[in-house]
Amino acid sequence: MAVYTDVSAEDLAEFLTGYDLGLLLSFKGIAEGVENSNYLIETGGGRYILTLYEKRVKKDDLPFFLGLMGHLADRGINCPLPVKGHDGRALRELAGRPAAMVTFLEGVSYRRPTPTHCAALGTTLAGLHEAGKGFTLSRENALSIEGWKALVAQAGERADEVAPGLGVAIRNELAELETHWPRTLPMGIIHADLFPNNTLFVGDTLSGVIDFYFAAKDALAYDLAICLNAWCFEADNAFNVTKGRAMIEAYRARRLLNGAEIAALPILCRGAALRFLLTRLVDWLNVPPGALVRPLDPMEYYKKLRFHQGVETATAYGLVA
Amino acid sequence: MAVYTDVSAEDLAEFLTGYDLGLLLSFKGIAEGVENSNYLIETGGGRYILTLYEKRVKKDDLPFFLGLMGHLADRGINCPLPVKGHDGRALRELAGRPAAMVTFLEGVSYRRPTPTHCAALGTTLAGLHEAGKGFTLSRENALSIEGWKALVAQAGERADEVAPGLGVAIRNELAELETHWPRTLPMGIIHADLFPNNTLFVGDTLSGVIDFYFAAKDALAYDLAICLNAWCFEADNAFNVTKGRAMIEAYRARRLLNGAEIAALPILCRGAALRFLLTRLVDWLNVPPGALVRPLDPMEYYKKLRFHQGVETATAYGLVA
Repeated sequence: MAVYTDVSAEDLAEFLTGYDLGLLLSFKGIAEGVENSNYLIETGGGRYILTLYEKRVKKDDLPFFLGLMGHLADRGINCPLPVKGHDGRALRELAGRPAAMVTFLEGVSYRRPTPTHCAALGTTLAGLHEAGKGFTLSRENALSIEGWKALVAQAGERADEVAPGLGVAIRNELAELETHWPRTLPMGIIHADLFPNNTLFVGDTLSGVIDFYFAAKDALAYDLAICLNAWCFEADNAFNVTKGRAMIEAYRARRLLNGAEIAALPILCRGAALRFLLTRLVDWLNVPPGALVRPLDPMEYYKKLRFHQGVETATAYGLVA
Repeated sequence: MAVYTDVSAEDLAEFLTGYDLGLLLSFKGIAEGVENSNYLIETGGGRYILTLYEKRVKKDDLPFFLGLMGHLADRGINCPLPVKGHDGRALRELAGRPAAMVTFLEGVSYRRPTPTHCAALGTTLAGLHEAGKGFTLSRENALSIEGWKALVAQAGERADEVAPGLGVAIRNELAELETHWPRTLPMGIIHADLFPNNTLFVGDTLSGVIDFYFAAKDALAYDLAICLNAWCFEADNAFNVTKGRAMIEAYRARRLLNGAEIAALPILCRGAALRFLLTRLVDWLNVPPGALVRPLDPMEYYKKLRFHQGVETATAYGLVA
């Protein structure tokens, strides 16, 4: 949530000569996105978001992310459209960093989404999964089960610094998931991080999906499991089945969930909870001294995981059998 | 350069019900202003900047600052216009902080202003001084000579941590200024912090003056001295007389500088240099351990002060005698 790389108006105006966007009218560094520097830019041609990719994003992955946004936008998904320069390239360089401009989308991110918003998300997620078909590039999901093993190793014995017994609970869960993780579900391009702060709404209309920097090829139903975790729990970590039902049924109305996907939903939700528990845990254990930004609480996702461990069938999430 | 107070879309939408601005379409925390939290907001009614005033701004001063912007905007100055709520008040509260919305202005701030930009600044500054006449509220300049004494006391013996001999040089300069500071120059409302980052340009046209949170009643020519310091030195701290001439002559074309003001310009420039040297010095000496933001270099203003100490008449700044 910071601007890491400072850009002067003079350097930006020079950078914009690589495009056909008219005069620079305004630019503001915006506090958005955890990993990159973002500027909201207005030119004679309209409004854009300029992103400078900082070191946590692999440069080799950028053609996949930018290509995916272009592919989805061409198919009617409300996502940012990368803007190409005179030379036809969207990926350029500014201030020594890879940089790209994408179209600006209106909308705000809700902190406390309602069932109406959860239904809109379900519809959009299914549409995203359908639209992803035919995208020719691919990217392995570095934060699927193999990646979790590496995170468990990275946290090591220190998990118990956050809560006594957390280390053994995580290792047991990982062992369970390795045994039971479904490996034959329908695959496709998933967003993999579609939290409320990565969606935009104008009133109750979902106007945009942003931040595709975790997108990868994986089980499509796993993306739904991530969203159930991110959207359908209340502040006290109780699952709201009304929100779950709204999301799942809206999803199914646009893309069929097959029997295997429905049966796998509880284990996929456990995997999704463990994935965010682990990345938050590693961030929590690696806060530099004096840091101003407090990392997100890993225990929120441990509580969600505990809920999913008690779930036997997807009806607990609101699925209408 | 940060957003200190986090506001949710839900809370912002609720806040906006106090105005008549239509549906919330977008809001982004922006990295602007040293002391407050700022959001760029778009509604059905247009674009606005929402400022939440953090603790460094005195709440009692806000009616002066907001009233001044309204007064100036009404007189054709391109400055933000405070937006009033249904109840006629511009100063409200959000997230436990005093808050106000002002109109958004297009333009970008140049890092390396040209003589053309310096001339535009001179014209605008004189216009601002003329437009300030008749504003009925007043505010003492807390950062004039009495305030400098307090800052020298605050820095104390620690000035020499920045550069050996700096402490005695500062105390000697303060004594000189106390003796020679002009006290009978034409007074009015000055901006007092009109650095390039507080002006906006579209191309070479000055499109906006922002950040009035140091504005106060003081000698009008002192404001010009602040701008000569802030705009007319090169990166190597050499004074650029072409820029100085462009600024001073553009200023004079719109507001007459009398003989006393012209004679006082060198001493006013010394005072302005000392003022920014002192605030930067105190900030430098009080950086919290682990802070991510490096304060501005006080020695830049010591070098500027040394230049002014060698100036005898305003012709050295480019004034056409």
